Amino acid sequence: MQKLNIIKVGGAILEDAQSFEGFLKNFASVPGLKVLVHGGGRSATKIAASLGIESKMAGGRRITDAPMLDVVTMVYGGLVNKKVVAALQALGMNALGLTGADLGYMLSVKRPVGEIDYGFAGDVVNTDASILADLIGKGVVPVLAPLTHDGKGQLLNTNADTIAAEAATALSANFETTLTYCFEKPGVLRDPDDDTSVIPLITRQQFHEYVESGVISGGMIPKIQNAFNSLERGVTKVVITKADNLGKKGGTVIVEL
Amino acid sequence: MQKLNIIKVGGAILEDAQSFEGFLKNFASVPGLKVLVHGGGRSATKIAASLGIESKMAGGRRITDAPMLDVVTMVYGGLVNKKVVAALQALGMNALGLTGADLGYMLSVKRPVGEIDYGFAGDVVNTDASILADLIGKGVVPVLAPLTHDGKGQLLNTNADTIAAEAATALSANFETTLTYCFEKPGVLRDPDDDTSVIPLITRQQFHEYVESGVISGGMIPKIQNAFNSLERGVTKVVITKADNLGKKGGTVIVEL
Repeated sequence: MQKLNIIKVGGAILEDAQSFEGFLKNFASVPGLKVLVHGGGRSATKIAASLGIESKMAGGRRITDAPMLDVVTMVYGGLVNKKVVAALQALGMNALGLTGADLGYMLSVKRPVGEIDYGFAGDVVNTDASILADLIGKGVVPVLAPLTHDGKGQLLNTNADTIAAEAATALSANFETTLTYCFEKPGVLRDPDDDTSVIPLITRQQFHEYVESGVISGGMIPKIQNAFNSLERGVTKVVITKADNLGKKGGTVIVEL
Repeated sequence: MQKLNIIKVGGAILEDAQSFEGFLKNFASVPGLKVLVHGGGRSATKIAASLGIESKMAGGRRITDAPMLDVVTMVYGGLVNKKVVAALQALGMNALGLTGADLGYMLSVKRPVGEIDYGFAGDVVNTDASILADLIGKGVVPVLAPLTHDGKGQLLNTNADTIAAEAATALSANFETTLTYCFEKPGVLRDPDDDTSVIPLITRQQFHEYVESGVISGGMIPKIQNAFNSLERGVTKVVITKADNLGKKGGTVIVEL
């Protein structure tokens, strides 16, 4: 099987003109077949504010009412996605911007209303990456925006980390897949205040040990649990690294041994 | 060669919730392979106004400064395009939304500054529809937004009629192509005040006669001249009809005899 790199980058990197260019050059330097998954939350918040629409969050996730859905459709599907596509084309990559509705590649359901009503937020239920895999094999570089659809005409706002994990597991049927999350730190750190303390490799057993000893804690625990979920579902390797280090050695590699 | 229908619809039809649904159902009823090209000017003007950005026009064309380019990228590439894609998916069509930057399918140059500076407006210089033709052959329905790129990372605002004509001529290499312009009238009329006076067929000789006798005048002349340009460049048939009549008989057919 051919190797495929699926790289997720947060909006913050792409929403700043200087880090945008630097990141895309690093992304260009990653050899072989690849997919880019992006966020765009800061731009959405900014544009929403300019339109007089307040951004409401719950547990770090955006509450997406109808006007906010229009904003994220404009910002994620249009502004951020198309700027990235045009920039990658200029760097010689045959980029193709997609939401989950395009090619019907990612289907979701509107998140059931529990204690919190997230509005038009989508939980992924199916990924059909067959045409996507064909295109990737022909050298196309998909650029995935954090939007899906319910198959009944409704667009839904979907977490970019989830899009990356779901696309990676679906594409594992066709490729030997590495899923890389670009992060503000150079990897998972033994000491959060020391950027040179990157843990280079985490196996499942080590993960349990690190959690027990308190080396890994807080928000990093679900992040790494999600990584193991992806590995169980066919992904070969998950990497957590700094956007600046993309295409270079380094970061934390998470594998099943 | 397989037949292909390329259908251009103005923004006004898609920007009204009621006509949106009706149009897409008519589009769904068109048999065989097809492509949809859309505008979105009214929504762009509205969103721009909400953002405090004034829309400036010259000769019916939008002047696209940097803030306006962001607006049209959001509205054409995001809001309008992705809503249409999700709606077509719900109707069983495997829609794929594209700007000219996606798959690098349509390259343009920034319009030279003459008496008027149109800003980030693109004049098409090349269309590479090879991957597009492949996808169409597999049953994918491309949905083309009126945006192109210059290959150097710059998105450019491009007239939707032009996108439709350029895509149709490029795809004529692979398909027997009919280009349909949806219009507010049921076709080219002998009497502009009588909607039943549609001229069913116009050949080049008839066109010259109609212009000489004054039956065809004003803005209809360049429209029909553009149709003949497309026919010269490989398109089999150009149809001018009312959006409501799409998929039904009727309208004006323009052919080279």
